[in-house]
Amino acid sequence: MSQAASVGILHPGMMGSSVAAALISNDHSVSWASEGRSQASARRAGEHGISDAGSLRELGEACEILFSVCPPDQALTLATTVVQSGFSGTYVDCNAISPGTAQAVAGLLDDNEIEVVDGGIIGPPAWQEGTTRLYLSGKQASSVATLFEGSKMEAITIGDEIGAASAMKMAYAGWTKGSAALLLNMVALAQHHNLGTHLESEWTLSQPQLHAALKNASTGNAPKAWRFSGEMQEIAETLRQAGLPAGAFDAATSTYQALTHFKSVETPQTKNVIEALLEAASGK
Amino acid sequence: MSQAASVGILHPGMMGSSVAAALISNDHSVSWASEGRSQASARRAGEHGISDAGSLRELGEACEILFSVCPPDQALTLATTVVQSGFSGTYVDCNAISPGTAQAVAGLLDDNEIEVVDGGIIGPPAWQEGTTRLYLSGKQASSVATLFEGSKMEAITIGDEIGAASAMKMAYAGWTKGSAALLLNMVALAQHHNLGTHLESEWTLSQPQLHAALKNASTGNAPKAWRFSGEMQEIAETLRQAGLPAGAFDAATSTYQALTHFKSVETPQTKNVIEALLEAASGK
Repeated sequence: MSQAASVGILHPGMMGSSVAAALISNDHSVSWASEGRSQASARRAGEHGISDAGSLRELGEACEILFSVCPPDQALTLATTVVQSGFSGTYVDCNAISPGTAQAVAGLLDDNEIEVVDGGIIGPPAWQEGTTRLYLSGKQASSVATLFEGSKMEAITIGDEIGAASAMKMAYAGWTKGSAALLLNMVALAQHHNLGTHLESEWTLSQPQLHAALKNASTGNAPKAWRFSGEMQEIAETLRQAGLPAGAFDAATSTYQALTHFKSVETPQTKNVIEALLEAASGK
Repeated sequence: MSQAASVGILHPGMMGSSVAAALISNDHSVSWASEGRSQASARRAGEHGISDAGSLRELGEACEILFSVCPPDQALTLATTVVQSGFSGTYVDCNAISPGTAQAVAGLLDDNEIEVVDGGIIGPPAWQEGTTRLYLSGKQASSVATLFEGSKMEAITIGDEIGAASAMKMAYAGWTKGSAALLLNMVALAQHHNLGTHLESEWTLSQPQLHAALKNASTGNAPKAWRFSGEMQEIAETLRQAGLPAGAFDAATSTYQALTHFKSVETPQTKNVIEALLEAASGK
């Protein structure tokens, strides 16, 4: 696969289009399937030179490798659709799913003689060098990694096991997204007791970094909360599979679910995000 | 109370003895009750010039004000004992308890004509200026605050309501101790999948502050975990009372419970702390 490969991307969302762009920068030919997809995807595909294969069946026939980049709760459904399309080749699941879900995806594809590589992306869409890693595991992980050599998406192989790359993503995002949910929850608690100002004054003395962390957690995360809640459930499941306590991610699921309506809001104010959490709390 | 007062401290533990020392530095006379207490408490009392009143009954008779500084799960029992001792005066509950528990303490004491002030201590024992705040709420909060004026323990009044100072402590410690438990849990998850080294390498690239945070969470918190689990349950209860998701503190309770045996260990290694979490996980 170190030569130019025919690659399909499911789908060219914010992250998916940056995976495609990294491959295109290495002279691989990258296509997508516009059938049933949004105008925003079509625009991104056009901007980055991703060819339109038409339907998923046509995409599967044209490609040796498919990359799946979708919200976590759609990962298994998408893999099912790929099986039904008759694809035979290598399927790289890059989604934020538990090792158990990754193994379920792999089991389904294995049964249909599709080779599976497990993936987990850490960082923002890879438009700059050094910001983003694609962790890969599975028998074909290192040959998939060579596709990205020298591109803005750094591919790192971490073993042969399906589930390792997913576990890596879960453990990493468990901190970044879990701690953001925890911080929002604590500020909501203080505000419930009309102590928001006192808490922030105390932070100024002893936890000054939390002012910026709160802004990130609210303004940065609320617009993405709609897709975080599924990821939080995958992390909870990952912890349960390991016998570790999972309650923080049941809580984080609720926190992000209370913020789904910020999807179309560009830079929501912290005040409004906390109010939304308190509204959800009072509705219980 | 701005003149020299007779104050009792229950009990001169690590934190309690620093509360006493701050009062003594302001020329208040501070006593404790040695009956049934440990040699370590007696040693600290001696070092800091805290007089021994003998029994709790004798302490109550000698003092206008009693400060309660004990593990959270003993706060209500200690208040009950104080009622039984026949004390009449002002009782300052400084413990890390939920507003609901603080109100239960206050209800019990009110019924026995003891004035109650709610307190919450944020920071380490106050041996240096600027490190530690005693938040106070209740009708007598500001007169209690004057006892500490100019001392190393900064007293901050935050209103008339019993429960406010406790809520302040819960919201603050919910982040500091809750996020430490979360971080330990995520590292344990990575290590369960043999990915500890990969996670730390990723942190070096994108979350370099987490190396020190992990060391604090393990080496710093494991020796205190035996008394953190009760505090985590109080925080969970505080969130439930507010209708907010509490699962992070059910999880943190389990995490700290798995570390109680580090009580006598001075600087436990991170590796051993994570192993203890994985042992607890595999025992489930």
